[in-house]
Amino acid sequence: MKTVKVLGCQMMVEEDKKMNLEKAEEMIARGIRKYQPDIIILPEMFNTPYDNSYFPEFSEAYGGDTTLKIQKLAKEQGVMIIAGSIPEQGEGEKEIYNTTYVFGSKGELLGKHRKIHLFDIDIPGKITFKESDVLSPGEEITVLDTKFGKIGIAICYDVRFPELFQIMEKEGARLVVIPGAFNTTTGPAHWELLMRSRALDNQVYVAAVSPARNSKASYQAYGHSMIVDPWGRILDELEEKEGFLYRELDIDYLHQVRGELPTRKNRRVSLYDTIKK
Amino acid sequence: MKTVKVLGCQMMVEEDKKMNLEKAEEMIARGIRKYQPDIIILPEMFNTPYDNSYFPEFSEAYGGDTTLKIQKLAKEQGVMIIAGSIPEQGEGEKEIYNTTYVFGSKGELLGKHRKIHLFDIDIPGKITFKESDVLSPGEEITVLDTKFGKIGIAICYDVRFPELFQIMEKEGARLVVIPGAFNTTTGPAHWELLMRSRALDNQVYVAAVSPARNSKASYQAYGHSMIVDPWGRILDELEEKEGFLYRELDIDYLHQVRGELPTRKNRRVSLYDTIKK
Repeated sequence: MKTVKVLGCQMMVEEDKKMNLEKAEEMIARGIRKYQPDIIILPEMFNTPYDNSYFPEFSEAYGGDTTLKIQKLAKEQGVMIIAGSIPEQGEGEKEIYNTTYVFGSKGELLGKHRKIHLFDIDIPGKITFKESDVLSPGEEITVLDTKFGKIGIAICYDVRFPELFQIMEKEGARLVVIPGAFNTTTGPAHWELLMRSRALDNQVYVAAVSPARNSKASYQAYGHSMIVDPWGRILDELEEKEGFLYRELDIDYLHQVRGELPTRKNRRVSLYDTIKK
Repeated sequence: MKTVKVLGCQMMVEEDKKMNLEKAEEMIARGIRKYQPDIIILPEMFNTPYDNSYFPEFSEAYGGDTTLKIQKLAKEQGVMIIAGSIPEQGEGEKEIYNTTYVFGSKGELLGKHRKIHLFDIDIPGKITFKESDVLSPGEEITVLDTKFGKIGIAICYDVRFPELFQIMEKEGARLVVIPGAFNTTTGPAHWELLMRSRALDNQVYVAAVSPARNSKASYQAYGHSMIVDPWGRILDELEEKEGFLYRELDIDYLHQVRGELPTRKNRRVSLYDTIKK
């Protein structure tokens, strides 16, 4: 594939799961009519408010309402969907994960990513959140082999860990998709910096998709979904409101950047390396 | 040490080595009078134009005019000097390195760093430079144990390789000093992004010191020397002109950031790691 058309849905998430699924369905259908994308990306925790007190009730095993709905939409619309994330009930386990499901254009499950790094942060007077009170961490680094090339998946706080991206790049990812819900403290401080540096350092495309900011929610999402190119340039960016993020990604340009600024080739692997265990 | 006062000299570099050493001496003396710093940092290639055609002629073995001068200044002024970099003639070798010498406040040599990653870049119509035509790469990652704590050193293009910084942080560096001369293409695109992301990802202070821009030079330095804190915030930044960069760094604040946003603790070393070979 020389180009890949990527659409992100920065959707408003409410306290009602049914409303959230209808919203996702509506934006997917509208986005397809407007952009004819190859890949659609939903935000982190798109079927539930981002709040520990909601995750258990809104969680589902694979085959629940949310995955069935998204799978059906992928098949009906003939489009690949990277389904942001949902609280996943582990099969036969009591654990809940923060999980991205990915469906191909025939509705087939291409894979999933369970958030590896749980968001435990305590900035007094600003933002305190402890995912690990309710969620369990994933144990796998995720690179999916798709008809649009290899795609890495990371969720939100995962973006703060450079090794993850270095490994995804080494395993062939040329696009990394990051469903994420930063907040109004960490968002202005770090969201753009992290997305741009992961793209530049690894000379890959990054597509980060946030929920829209819901003024009624306990957790105020930063929004600012963005697509970044391998030169670290922002190709498209939203503000905090609901909307579509869209860009056609050019793989030839990625190779051009790697030729002009050959950091992939200039790594000194005789002195250091990033390893997967 | 609870705080460390860091001064960078963004000095103008000319085609005359003697002038460059006099300029360094003058700025060091003036900077000490004005700021009483603990550590003074000079820019990359401060005794020579940044141009392959000058490096052989301007190169020196240890004990040459430049190191003697800086060593004497450190002792006389009682200040630690991280002497940017110079073209170093290897002892008994024909190789030339891009080398930072570091002197303590008694004039003692604390260590040196030879640039590990040589700057070979070819962006047609913008910037083409091939250090490896003239220079040889260093083979050591450099963290110096000083009375102000452990300090990592990287030179310019080294900053593009995240593993280097992850290893320096693991080895105890809490300040990383980066003499660097980006240009007017890569500077606006990447300088701030790279300096801020290395600081944020590793939760360390970063002090990057460039030469001033010399409109007569073949290579137009970006300037924009900057000090970044462990939250990724720019504490001080210059433009392209000659001047001083100064800030008192607070180590307690570094620990506060690491407590509030515990990415050091949340790394998943059972899944991945960065290794030194």
